[in-house]
Amino acid sequence: MVLNFTNARKFCTKSSLLKNAVQLTKDKFPNLIRGSYATVDSKDIDYFNKLLGANNFITGEEVKSYNEDWLKSVSGFSKFVLKPKTTEQVSEILKYCYKHNIAICVQGGNTGLVGGSVPVFDEVILSTSAMNNIISFDKLSGVLVCQAGCVLENLMNYVQNEGFIMPFDLGAKGTCQIGGNLATNAGGLRLIKYGSLQGSVLGLQSVLADGQILNCLNTLRKDNTGYHLKHMFIGSEGTLGVITKVAIQCPNTPKYVNVAFIGLKSFNKVLSFFSLTRKQLSGSLSSFELMDSEAIKSVQTNIGLKCPIDDSFEFYVLLELSADNNFINLAIEELLEKALAEEIIVDATVADQPSQIQNLWKIRENIPESLLRNGYVYKYDITLPHEYFYEAVLEIRKRLDKLDVKAVCGYGHLGDGNLHLNVATTEYNEKITSAIEPYIYEWTSKYKGSISAEHGIGLLKSKYLNYSKSNLEVELMKKLKNTIDPKKILNPYKIFPQDK
Amino acid sequence: MVLNFTNARKFCTKSSLLKNAVQLTKDKFPNLIRGSYATVDSKDIDYFNKLLGANNFITGEEVKSYNEDWLKSVSGFSKFVLKPKTTEQVSEILKYCYKHNIAICVQGGNTGLVGGSVPVFDEVILSTSAMNNIISFDKLSGVLVCQAGCVLENLMNYVQNEGFIMPFDLGAKGTCQIGGNLATNAGGLRLIKYGSLQGSVLGLQSVLADGQILNCLNTLRKDNTGYHLKHMFIGSEGTLGVITKVAIQCPNTPKYVNVAFIGLKSFNKVLSFFSLTRKQLSGSLSSFELMDSEAIKSVQTNIGLKCPIDDSFEFYVLLELSADNNFINLAIEELLEKALAEEIIVDATVADQPSQIQNLWKIRENIPESLLRNGYVYKYDITLPHEYFYEAVLEIRKRLDKLDVKAVCGYGHLGDGNLHLNVATTEYNEKITSAIEPYIYEWTSKYKGSISAEHGIGLLKSKYLNYSKSNLEVELMKKLKNTIDPKKILNPYKIFPQDK
Repeated sequence: MVLNFTNARKFCTKSSLLKNAVQLTKDKFPNLIRGSYATVDSKDIDYFNKLLGANNFITGEEVKSYNEDWLKSVSGFSKFVLKPKTTEQVSEILKYCYKHNIAICVQGGNTGLVGGSVPVFDEVILSTSAMNNIISFDKLSGVLVCQAGCVLENLMNYVQNEGFIMPFDLGAKGTCQIGGNLATNAGGLRLIKYGSLQGSVLGLQSVLADGQILNCLNTLRKDNTGYHLKHMFIGSEGTLGVITKVAIQCPNTPKYVNVAFIGLKSFNKVLSFFSLTRKQLSGSLSSFELMDSEAIKSVQTNIGLKCPIDDSFEFYVLLELSADNNFINLAIEELLEKALAEEIIVDATVADQPSQIQNLWKIRENIPESLLRNGYVYKYDITLPHEYFYEAVLEIRKRLDKLDVKAVCGYGHLGDGNLHLNVATTEYNEKITSAIEPYIYEWTSKYKGSISAEHGIGLLKSKYLNYSKSNLEVELMKKLKNTIDPKKILNPYKIFPQDK
Repeated sequence: MVLNFTNARKFCTKSSLLKNAVQLTKDKFPNLIRGSYATVDSKDIDYFNKLLGANNFITGEEVKSYNEDWLKSVSGFSKFVLKPKTTEQVSEILKYCYKHNIAICVQGGNTGLVGGSVPVFDEVILSTSAMNNIISFDKLSGVLVCQAGCVLENLMNYVQNEGFIMPFDLGAKGTCQIGGNLATNAGGLRLIKYGSLQGSVLGLQSVLADGQILNCLNTLRKDNTGYHLKHMFIGSEGTLGVITKVAIQCPNTPKYVNVAFIGLKSFNKVLSFFSLTRKQLSGSLSSFELMDSEAIKSVQTNIGLKCPIDDSFEFYVLLELSADNNFINLAIEELLEKALAEEIIVDATVADQPSQIQNLWKIRENIPESLLRNGYVYKYDITLPHEYFYEAVLEIRKRLDKLDVKAVCGYGHLGDGNLHLNVATTEYNEKITSAIEPYIYEWTSKYKGSISAEHGIGLLKSKYLNYSKSNLEVELMKKLKNTIDPKKILNPYKIFPQDK
């Protein structure tokens, strides 16, 4: 069985967004103070217009959707979107903005969840959307080189035709862009097998705040010649430079994929099953996703998907194996039989056909959407040592016991220790926020977890940065920022807590 | 068949070194100018003595071996070696040295090949050797935390007992230390399967030049909270901080390993075979090592190892597969049969027993040693796009045609595009150097290769840095250095070309 890997996963679309008007960030957070940046004037408008042409210089009503984030939780009031097509245009834009002290908000697919990809005030939006060319693909080495604005799913389709896959996969793949993926160090569903972007990205090109083009667009797997500058930009959320091109190592498409959907009685059993799986099949393990009963209930009720096994278990695991050989077909059954015999798991169903596999993945992938249908979702994306992984959900459930919530549920990439803790309500309620925050961050910090596993810091988590970073780390980060972007025109107000 | 992975590889020992006296670096490179650092005086000696105790403060004759590199190509004339046991002691040392402007040379196992781990002048040597404790190992996640001075082979043995392997393996494993491995972003023999240290290292602790302890000792697989500072230190060759602790993700030991030793007629056939292997078995591929006929001849003649197949081929490949399942036993035979039928390869032998596997690896691993037995070896470690990979050897062979050389040979990690180009002679000869350098770097640069794939820049390649890094990259590197170590007390003269 050869799996059409790319099409096996569903992604959320903007169609599901709430239709409410979005409060301006400056009103939602009145303590935020606009930096002393220039306001764009007619001279600047002429310049941008001339440089990019009217089609790639967006003004008017169309700018609105670029001002608002995907969750509709924050909104800037920028009047201008720049859509350069080339690195050289990005360079010209930044040279100009640097000289004239114009703040820039860098935006990829705008699928971020922490308010990092939209302006806070009136920053000019630099969208990478028009930089969407694939530059080269080496069929022998599997190295893809492309512009930063390529949509992840398009890249997936492209390399799939050559027998390769992208080394990561995200729910937002239909919209998110590779440049944004790098800028936020995206994790996703394949990390347990293919590792982080820090390992997969071979090179990148970025434009510094002053417009200089930094070309680290290496396509080599090994290059130990001085500091590994590219890593400064991966995960720096557009605050150190605008990523314009990417070189990334793609793995060959695995020939065989098997997925099991498993019911378990307790979280301890989940851990035992994870341990057993790693012992027996670690080399083939490509996903180990946890879903709790609340998450399954939500998908069943709000989306109408049916749980493929008895829906009364406390926990569910979606296990995916992939390999060069169909031994995994038998191996997954042996694993499950052993786990059943040892009473680690209670029930399971296995799929090895693309459509079946797709159906099992649908359940996992529809959880965020199903929760959003309640009205509002408080999203927490944390990493925890395995022993504390699910305790976080129990803690929050306890704290929200008396409040009006639709669901408190936990799901996510257990294999990576990455928990998505979601609280669904009919509408936003400040009381609920303050029952969760900063408690959840304090709790995570106490157990040496990360307050943002995948989503980054952006604007919304910036005030909690100190729960995951020491003073010295923040100080060093600031030094780097000051060294590379001394005027701080790139993505201001993001990552760093505003000084009081 | 379960392979004792750790013991399957041989490492070179210092016993094989040439016994000649080593010329002082300052005499070999008279243009190098000592920085305006303080000279250690009796007050400083008292301080170090009191802080570390006599056992961990080395003076006198014993310092000699710390001054000389493994290749005996450079030598400093430091009078003092500090061997702190704890991060806090490192912090005290650096605070003191920073205040008193004393230059420091950071040294791990001193197995580097570019003069990066020994002093150039009289820098005080800070050896990490006494920081050799394993701090923790998590059997569920496979995360190892240890001090920087742990010897790689000891770590391999330790995690092997728990069913894990280290994600990288080096010839120098019996001597090299994990801190040095990180500082030089070591690559090695498993990179094609387990990726680079940039992907495997989860966290590190380092002490900055001014003595501040920067604790990025994360043990989580995912943590997107601000800049990924740890990556600044990986591969920075001790110039930005002293790595004191490491957290690293270890993969489970593969249950089955198969190795084939293959003879091929031309380099094009090698590439075809690599392509075929990736197509059929990329998920199981753990090594694809190239050896040319000169390399095999050298091992046969100088070490007395017998080539396991006909020794008249132009090229040899050592192919290793590893997996959770013994399907690879059959799969490797099918692969070889197909390659034989298509006349891609000419001959091959396969091993699946530890002792047989070890014997095949011995041939590959004894190449450097066998070449050194001629007297002297000019070592070049470059990455090239596959199409130019072997051309580099032919080019150099042509240039040295009329000179007195014992062998010009190419071997290395073809899977990663990493060529070890070695020229063996009876003794060092300036004429040969100038026939090779900077030509080889110009040539590599022309084909967008890296002038140092694994070995780093250190002192010896610093003047060639510009062949792999643009002016802007070097400028940015300097800015980082100035920001983090403004007095430049850490590993001076390394990486950066001396300003004229």
